Amino acid sequence: MSRVRVHNFSISIDGFATGEGQSLDTPFGHAGERLHEWFFPTRTFQQMQGRPEGSAGVDGAIAATWDAGIGAEIMGRNKFGPHRGPWENHDWNGWWGPNPPFHTPVFVLTHHPRPSVEMEGGTTFHFIDATPREALRQAREAAGGLDVRIGGGPTTIRAFLAEDLIDHLHIAVVPIVLGRGERLWDGLEGLEERFRIESVTTPSGVTHMTFTRP
Amino acid sequence: MSRVRVHNFSISIDGFATGEGQSLDTPFGHAGERLHEWFFPTRTFQQMQGRPEGSAGVDGAIAATWDAGIGAEIMGRNKFGPHRGPWENHDWNGWWGPNPPFHTPVFVLTHHPRPSVEMEGGTTFHFIDATPREALRQAREAAGGLDVRIGGGPTTIRAFLAEDLIDHLHIAVVPIVLGRGERLWDGLEGLEERFRIESVTTPSGVTHMTFTRP
Repeated sequence: MSRVRVHNFSISIDGFATGEGQSLDTPFGHAGERLHEWFFPTRTFQQMQGRPEGSAGVDGAIAATWDAGIGAEIMGRNKFGPHRGPWENHDWNGWWGPNPPFHTPVFVLTHHPRPSVEMEGGTTFHFIDATPREALRQAREAAGGLDVRIGGGPTTIRAFLAEDLIDHLHIAVVPIVLGRGERLWDGLEGLEERFRIESVTTPSGVTHMTFTRP
Repeated sequence: MSRVRVHNFSISIDGFATGEGQSLDTPFGHAGERLHEWFFPTRTFQQMQGRPEGSAGVDGAIAATWDAGIGAEIMGRNKFGPHRGPWENHDWNGWWGPNPPFHTPVFVLTHHPRPSVEMEGGTTFHFIDATPREALRQAREAAGGLDVRIGGGPTTIRAFLAEDLIDHLHIAVVPIVLGRGERLWDGLEGLEERFRIESVTTPSGVTHMTFTRP
């Protein structure tokens, strides 16, 4: 059965997954890189940068589970880029350069569809204006029986959680208080009733939480 | 040096320390007892109920640190009781019965002062209309050189954190999404810069966080 998964999604202890003021230079707004410092040393991140080595402790092990068995990703437009409203042109193809780390079809949710873009390495961006359920239908079809990853940001993950479409959720809680930005948990009262939840704190100070189906 | 400490203060993963709708029957509103289930088996809680035994694992060990060296407590009026506005009478002396578990002077912050009440076992409730700093001055004087505990609720702890008056903060993060109530972290952006933070998850599923002065 094709599952729907979220991996390596970081939030502050006050529940913000991104700060205020996203821009080309600050994809996470005033949060800067602070939500992801635990992730940078991992082999998963290092390999995304073309470097073969990286940490393989518990943070590394958990991070590495993100891509096995994934056949497609769905992301919100704010993960794809800092632009709002109609596209001025189609020059922007994400933050990740010519060879993005996804290597699968990626469905970008936007009210402003544009032509698909085939990148190097197997990533193709499709731009669709669709409900979570319809986006998932398309992604599942493209995934050919494999799992679908919901890549973020918080608004997108929250929408999929609200419709109970997510089977596996990995959250990394970082011990900082961001104070403002976009919250993950809003509107999800009682979420714990639908999942088995495990938590573990690692020496980086991050608490990893996994939400899986009971 | 007399320190200011918070212990055994539970919040949900979305940061609520109490739910909506506090009443005589529901001190934590719609949260019920869910934020404190980890605490009930501990020897600390069991002894408050007059039972000598209780769990002494990691939850128990952390919970037990709450009273050594404490000479006074400060609490908000909503921790003391569900009443709002002027007191209709002085019959209410807290949720804890004739012998409250504090055994020290307890300063209740309220805009409606009333006469002090001496309870059994060394607890005396004083009702004061004071700023955090002035309340702390009075509590320190009453504590005779010992530490002062800030007992909650969230509004009170937040006010003391905002003025940087707290030296030791123990938070137990419970893996539930409450959705509504009173948040702990609001208005405390950058709090992590003032503390050394450690986290540990225990088999009960709770993540204990300690914030201490670096």
